Amino acid sequence: MNRAMSTKDQLLIGLKRRKGAWISGEALAQEMAISRSAVWKHICALKDEGYVVESSRKKGYLLRELSSLLLPNEIQEGLNTNVFGKRKIAYFTQTDSTNLRAKDLAHEGAPEGTVVVAEKQIQGRGRRGRSWFSPLGEGIYASIIMRPLISPNEAPGLTLMASVAVAEAIQTLTSLNVHIKWPNDIMIYGRKVAGILTEISTEMDRVDYVIVGLGMNVNISHENFPPDLRDKATSILMETGKTFPRVTLLRAYLEEHEKYYELFTLNGFGPVLNRWKQLADIIGRRITVDLMEHRYTGEVLDIDREGFLILRDHEGRMQRIISGDVTLLND
Amino acid sequence: MNRAMSTKDQLLIGLKRRKGAWISGEALAQEMAISRSAVWKHICALKDEGYVVESSRKKGYLLRELSSLLLPNEIQEGLNTNVFGKRKIAYFTQTDSTNLRAKDLAHEGAPEGTVVVAEKQIQGRGRRGRSWFSPLGEGIYASIIMRPLISPNEAPGLTLMASVAVAEAIQTLTSLNVHIKWPNDIMIYGRKVAGILTEISTEMDRVDYVIVGLGMNVNISHENFPPDLRDKATSILMETGKTFPRVTLLRAYLEEHEKYYELFTLNGFGPVLNRWKQLADIIGRRITVDLMEHRYTGEVLDIDREGFLILRDHEGRMQRIISGDVTLLND
Repeated sequence: MNRAMSTKDQLLIGLKRRKGAWISGEALAQEMAISRSAVWKHICALKDEGYVVESSRKKGYLLRELSSLLLPNEIQEGLNTNVFGKRKIAYFTQTDSTNLRAKDLAHEGAPEGTVVVAEKQIQGRGRRGRSWFSPLGEGIYASIIMRPLISPNEAPGLTLMASVAVAEAIQTLTSLNVHIKWPNDIMIYGRKVAGILTEISTEMDRVDYVIVGLGMNVNISHENFPPDLRDKATSILMETGKTFPRVTLLRAYLEEHEKYYELFTLNGFGPVLNRWKQLADIIGRRITVDLMEHRYTGEVLDIDREGFLILRDHEGRMQRIISGDVTLLND
Repeated sequence: MNRAMSTKDQLLIGLKRRKGAWISGEALAQEMAISRSAVWKHICALKDEGYVVESSRKKGYLLRELSSLLLPNEIQEGLNTNVFGKRKIAYFTQTDSTNLRAKDLAHEGAPEGTVVVAEKQIQGRGRRGRSWFSPLGEGIYASIIMRPLISPNEAPGLTLMASVAVAEAIQTLTSLNVHIKWPNDIMIYGRKVAGILTEISTEMDRVDYVIVGLGMNVNISHENFPPDLRDKATSILMETGKTFPRVTLLRAYLEEHEKYYELFTLNGFGPVLNRWKQLADIIGRRITVDLMEHRYTGEVLDIDREGFLILRDHEGRMQRIISGDVTLLND
């Protein structure tokens, strides 16, 4: 599944194997069967990618620090999945939106498990045409292509599945208390740390592809959010007080994603939905949902197997709502 | 809305205005403000497009017969719509599939009302990856782009809507007795004359675009069908005994399509569904539906407002089925 490894990637492995010890340029050159000046050239390329490599005329080279970029080879190193992230990872320093890139790839036939990652999005998008603040190198902007053998009405369940995977990844790595706000906002103490944008291409009775895009605020500080977001948004940095390696979070997300996707494929939406309900804490609450031109108010009775919210209004009428903007009401 | 008119199109209008009478090359040249040799060049181009133009050294030119091709200017002439077919019509002598071309256009942002037409499809497609027999110049292969402001679960209704539009167009022009076989086959005396392939691109709570592709057997003779289709397929030619101008049928379809689309937009799916039920004659029938790996057998109770078939099996259990292959059972 892995792409053919470049000389630069091999050199990186050679440096990593020394675990912070020096290695001479000559030894590296021999190991790679390339010239010493080629070694030097590739070291420069690694530095350009953000790796901190020290060099000394006497001692050679030493890998001091990994790149802080979300480089495909770093994502894949130690990634414990079979499919997601193991196929092509399309990497952009900057792009319009990872979902748009993923749609283009899916449109051209990219297989399930393909991932698009960007350090920065110019037109980072949220639900319903909203924007997603996507500054360079401080968030995770990643889109996953799936090709599930399900009927179109089951596809919305994958959004809820993705929000479970994101919540689990953050919770496991940071021990922070994470909640899901229906349908797909990931919250910490009432502020949004991540969101999901799902895009689905179907025939009437068969899904062609589903793209799940993740935007996660990882190392964005309070001051670095635009003023209008400061009260609503949070980040892992803000909640834990320290920067967090994005690659570790992304790997954990891909692993959780694959775990729940397999569960969904084998056992249907039930188990995923149960975990979602535990994380969402919405059932029994009184809420208002704004969807397109409608506003629904009532008590949440359940989330059904197609991901719809079942709401009972004050006259006892039931509403089945697929998505919308939720406001919790104080009783 | 119309594209800028080319000199060739203007010349065609000049010829049509004579209604089968001769006009001299000199008069045409003056009218168009071009040279006589330019007139001759454009007449040749019109002949290449299938127009039958007679020429005489003494009398000039005479338009004997319109092209039998589905040329955009012929489709648009006298087309009584506001949107569908009035925007871009992408015309192909031959293409892989009009739905694939329409998806590419929609993906690039083509507006609602855009139409793709082909004389022949190399990979004409039906539902669930099946092929659609698409010989040159004998059928209508057309795909329409819609961008309805509806939620994704309403989108399947547009398939039923399109099948109503097709049935109405055929019935009005030919007086043939047309039935719809759920969800979207158009039948004459038990044989398929047309089919619809719907492809939908959505976010979770908002439709991006819907493409409705039509394949209609117009002037295909019994012998020209592949042997395995001869018992199942029919054409307008086979049912009426004469060739039918495809452009007239396509125009009628676009007009019916717009009429029902406006009805759907204004009044929801109810009125369309009522007309569908009249044309479908399926309610109360015992059927078998094959969908993915499941087979459902029972009595059809209803088609609901989202286009689902409501089936009651012999134990009284209800099934709600979005699509599948229907077999009518003899009681």
